[in-house]
Amino acid sequence: MTNFPSRTETARLDDGDSLAGCRAAFRLPDGILYFDGNSLGALSEAVVERLGRVVEEEWGRDLIRSWNAHDWMGLPGRVGDRIAPLIGAQPGEVVVTDSTSINLFKVLAAALALRPGRRYILSDEANFPTDLYMAEGLARLVGTEVELRLVAAEAIPAALGSDVAVVMASHVDYQSGRIRDLAGITEAAHATGALTVWDLSHSVGVLPIDLNGAGVDLAVGCTYKFLNAGPGAPAFLYVAERLQGEIENPLSGWMGDTAPFEFQTSYRPAPGLARMLSGTPPIMSMVALDAALDVFQGIDLEAVRAKAVRLTSLFVELVEARLGGAGLVLASPREATARGAQISFRHDEGYPIMQALIARGVIGDFRAPDILRFGFAPLYLRFVDVWDAVEVLAEIMDQDFWDDPRYRRRLAVT
Amino acid sequence: MTNFPSRTETARLDDGDSLAGCRAAFRLPDGILYFDGNSLGALSEAVVERLGRVVEEEWGRDLIRSWNAHDWMGLPGRVGDRIAPLIGAQPGEVVVTDSTSINLFKVLAAALALRPGRRYILSDEANFPTDLYMAEGLARLVGTEVELRLVAAEAIPAALGSDVAVVMASHVDYQSGRIRDLAGITEAAHATGALTVWDLSHSVGVLPIDLNGAGVDLAVGCTYKFLNAGPGAPAFLYVAERLQGEIENPLSGWMGDTAPFEFQTSYRPAPGLARMLSGTPPIMSMVALDAALDVFQGIDLEAVRAKAVRLTSLFVELVEARLGGAGLVLASPREATARGAQISFRHDEGYPIMQALIARGVIGDFRAPDILRFGFAPLYLRFVDVWDAVEVLAEIMDQDFWDDPRYRRRLAVT
Repeated sequence: MTNFPSRTETARLDDGDSLAGCRAAFRLPDGILYFDGNSLGALSEAVVERLGRVVEEEWGRDLIRSWNAHDWMGLPGRVGDRIAPLIGAQPGEVVVTDSTSINLFKVLAAALALRPGRRYILSDEANFPTDLYMAEGLARLVGTEVELRLVAAEAIPAALGSDVAVVMASHVDYQSGRIRDLAGITEAAHATGALTVWDLSHSVGVLPIDLNGAGVDLAVGCTYKFLNAGPGAPAFLYVAERLQGEIENPLSGWMGDTAPFEFQTSYRPAPGLARMLSGTPPIMSMVALDAALDVFQGIDLEAVRAKAVRLTSLFVELVEARLGGAGLVLASPREATARGAQISFRHDEGYPIMQALIARGVIGDFRAPDILRFGFAPLYLRFVDVWDAVEVLAEIMDQDFWDDPRYRRRLAVT
Repeated sequence: MTNFPSRTETARLDDGDSLAGCRAAFRLPDGILYFDGNSLGALSEAVVERLGRVVEEEWGRDLIRSWNAHDWMGLPGRVGDRIAPLIGAQPGEVVVTDSTSINLFKVLAAALALRPGRRYILSDEANFPTDLYMAEGLARLVGTEVELRLVAAEAIPAALGSDVAVVMASHVDYQSGRIRDLAGITEAAHATGALTVWDLSHSVGVLPIDLNGAGVDLAVGCTYKFLNAGPGAPAFLYVAERLQGEIENPLSGWMGDTAPFEFQTSYRPAPGLARMLSGTPPIMSMVALDAALDVFQGIDLEAVRAKAVRLTSLFVELVEARLGGAGLVLASPREATARGAQISFRHDEGYPIMQALIARGVIGDFRAPDILRFGFAPLYLRFVDVWDAVEVLAEIMDQDFWDDPRYRRRLAVT
């Protein structure tokens, strides 16, 4: 076992952390070390307060009048405008609506319509499944002239050609945490005339993102991970301003019409991004997201990124120093600059190890077949949390722990 | 002016109302007479309690573990099973997911796939716009072989033929409140080999509906109107059990996969109705709906229907008796059995009249060009509310009111 920082030394990192104060904005349960903010972000005080008020006052008291009185109609665009600075977009380029899956369908179909005659949606074979499944569904629906083509992420640039309509990729890989080259792939795609659809679900809120700077065409992202908007909160959708005049939404519901309350028989797409809306917006989830974004007000994403790098690096260092021979194999990039706010380790006994961690209050998640996945939300995770989690992991990896009948009993009931 | 019941006589109707006790389940604002439950249903105590608990305990405290510990995964089907008895469906035939608009797209696409070679989606030209717009979007996406064909609702049976794949209709018309012949149109469609998609948004919760009895194939419906689940709450989707083995969902997201957490590269549709899910379910809205359905527990929909008939009849009777010459023209069916829980009147000055009503606490809504629309939610509306509302309407229709500068001032600011 090599040298590693003591808990006291680690605690000093928290004392010097400029983001340490953000933790107070959240309601974190006692006795839990939470490493799953990349799957479901924590609840903030602002959400509790706002949601309670909106339910009782806006819905309960003001009822239907709230569509105007509290501008519920404007929420998709207004909340989108608050996400815009997190992803390098301008006001009017982001709207909040539906789920990430549904939004992927919209932007993929829109991209195909902008590149008629091109056959392929090109993606990474290890992309998040719902991204691939939605593309499959779209290809099935429109028929034989469209196909989803999958290659290894590294092979995307080489697979580009005049038959590719759109490249669909995740900015940060959900399994390994590897950051994909957003600017480079976008540039390569454009050089062959293809459009790009980026899924920002695992990068928004923890990485500085510059969609405008990279010339990205279309993007979607999840708000219930690092944006902390609550389970199943609506997703966001980005369309570069230059494409907004020509883009078509196949899921053309009344909220994307130019004048929903004129109740015309035929759809007339709204000017700008509003045409990407479909049905009635989910107001309760929308205001929860709006409140959850309060914590990002005035936050420097470079500082968030720097803390994520230090948190993940500390975790890798401690795990390898203390558990070098325990069979844990790093599945995330070793270079901190190449990974998001996430560390994955492979282990043959990954599933029972994660179950044992969770039973002892260290919450990460398991991804088949053998990945232990840990998320590091810089706004509420402390350096000592990392130290304490590794302490628990070390206890679990000790053979005595596995032989203890109490462990077996505990595992059987979780 | 003919004879009409006094307020005291009307109050006796409430004394004899077997549903009168339901009103206590709701939080209704003081000073408001609410006739817009067909647009946004009222908030119930159960929703406030449940939503607060789920936010603080399930999301805030139990975090990611709630997907299993509180069976968040099972919510779409479990809540769907609670809606099933309201629409004459069996357990496993209803799922809660996405918006009404998105669900329409899914079932229309599924219907087209089940009837290949048939060209038309046949609908009523006065159907709710989002229904028509979604069908338009689908037709645009799949290309020249599919077309939306619109006729007057009454002309649907005559327009059926071997080229119609699916008939899409609303059970209760959103403007007039007229009930369409669900069983008859379904039978006529089946006789020509077409499938049916019914939109139950304006009938669910106020009319006994028998989808199984009528042999309906597919249906969708809104939960934020008479089901009181809150603004933009997720919608429901029905697929007859006999079709569930062959139906395809074009919006094939990971929640419709047979094993979402195996993270396979290719989509494998889940057995049964679960395949109609797409992205991650909106948990907060889903539990709000679940709680909102509590008030329907043990309620006889025949009693709800009977009260709706009496409420709407009283309203028509009072308006016509007191305001016979004021230019209000009934736009709903005069026979109570032919209309849902809604009354519409046309008036050339419909917009300012509704604005004046709202300013005085009588909340209905206006639908262009000239319709004053009033919804009658039997679970929380009283007979005296109807009497009081007509009293306010009578004051407004008095010419002195219009000439009063205070009215003009008020109108200018609302």
